[in-house]
Amino acid sequence: MAKGLFITLEGSEGAGKSTQIEVICSYLKNKGRKVICVREPGGTPIAEDIRALLKTPRNDDSMCDTTELLLMYAARAQLVNCFIKPKLSEGFDIICDRHDLSTIAYQGGGRGMNMDHINAVRNIVLGDFRPDLTFLLDIDPEEGMKRARRRGDLDRFEQSKMDFFIRVRNTYIRCAQEDPEHIVLIDGAQPLDVVSANVISCLDKFNV
Amino acid sequence: MAKGLFITLEGSEGAGKSTQIEVICSYLKNKGRKVICVREPGGTPIAEDIRALLKTPRNDDSMCDTTELLLMYAARAQLVNCFIKPKLSEGFDIICDRHDLSTIAYQGGGRGMNMDHINAVRNIVLGDFRPDLTFLLDIDPEEGMKRARRRGDLDRFEQSKMDFFIRVRNTYIRCAQEDPEHIVLIDGAQPLDVVSANVISCLDKFNV
Ligand SMILES: Nc1ncnc2c1ncn2[C@@H]1O[C@H](COP(=O)(O)OP(=O)(O)O)[C@@H](O)[C@H]1O
Ligand SMILES: Nc1ncnc2c1ncn2[C@@H]1O[C@H](COP(=O)(O)OP(=O)(O)O)[C@@H](O)[C@H]1O
Ligand SMILES: [Mg+2]
Ligand SMILES: [Mg+2]
Repeated sequence: MAKGLFITLEGSEGAGKSTQIEVICSYLKNKGRKVICVREPGGTPIAEDIRALLKTPRNDDSMCDTTELLLMYAARAQLVNCFIKPKLSEGFDIICDRHDLSTIAYQGGGRGMNMDHINAVRNIVLGDFRPDLTFLLDIDPEEGMKRARRRGDLDRFEQSKMDFFIRVRNTYIRCAQEDPEHIVLIDGAQPLDVVSANVISCLDKFNV
Repeated sequence: MAKGLFITLEGSEGAGKSTQIEVICSYLKNKGRKVICVREPGGTPIAEDIRALLKTPRNDDSMCDTTELLLMYAARAQLVNCFIKPKLSEGFDIICDRHDLSTIAYQGGGRGMNMDHINAVRNIVLGDFRPDLTFLLDIDPEEGMKRARRRGDLDRFEQSKMDFFIRVRNTYIRCAQEDPEHIVLIDGAQPLDVVSANVISCLDKFNV
């Protein structure tokens, strides 16, 4: 059986990831493909428990950067090994709301963690497993935050300062420039139908 | 102010770690020292949440080895960075029920994980931070399990098969043989007062 496609969505809060996942999902289903959508961190019961640990603001303990990094990769290891890889082998397409590039952007760019450390853990967890295609929806963080705020409470990440999000954005863009073959950079500030058209034209080119 | 001592207890379930921690704690307090006892995984609110994830048997998801390793080190990073290091600087002695050697023995020896991977994560989390002194209480796993069973329910690790625990024991012993300056190997099958006397004579030599 043909292996499924692994497609990831990246970008700051409010960039339009969840919205475009719907677009991609419909597109693939219309082609008669079997599609599963998951999110990171999360996507399996253990990984969702780790997500709760990562996301919940707390006042009894302040999470250190290394702990955050290892929890992210612990959740990713569980999702990739126990869910994504077997499902791809069964022929399912997997669409993932955030994946490894988020760690590069948030823990690497945002928190300024040692990139050699991040790459060492990444190598242990992922080896050379990579998405077939990544959509990076780029948006000014102020604008994205305005959109996200309409959705409700801010989590532990969303409470960070604006310069953090600017570093995240710049790291995302740099990664896309360095790997244009796998990462498609789309201006997420465009009207919704224009962003969706950009995404679809890219999927058309991918010839799925 | 003089830095405190960092002492760790290692060994299989039922080897006598909790029992000897009481002995060491009394010994140090009698010398007028300030002592704090902690356990791994755990010891801070976040690390205790990670402990619960690691320990709780569950039937909705089967934890992969890499996830287990990263959760162990995520908890260790939080405990060492946010609690142990600052407390040692304040002059407290820290006695820790399990620490890094457990990961070498259980994930490395027991699960057979790649030791280069373990060392890479260890290096990121601990750098060259090491205990001043480690007591390894050695016991036949069957005998230890008998002792532990008297205490009640078995957790996810305690449910493993006996050959797993034999590999754990052998790895522990090999590490002690390779680093006799820092790891004191004590026969935990001896009567309680003999084990305690061994521990105390070692602390006497350490001249605290
Ligand atoms: N191109 C767009 N223009 C305007 N609003 C958008 C656009 N894309 C998404 N939105 C809206 O912005 C909010 C955040 O979008 P969402 O897809 O949830 O972002 P993300 O998942 O990246 O946080 C939602 O209310 C969504 O309807
Ligand atoms: N040397 C010993 N001989 C006999 N029983 C012991 C000895 N040391 C501890 N025990 C008993 O064995 C059980 C397990 O000891 P414990 O200190 O809790 O082990 P651990 O913390 O290593 O799992 C306890 O009931 C304890 O009282
Ligand atoms: Mg979303
Ligand atoms: Mg104990």
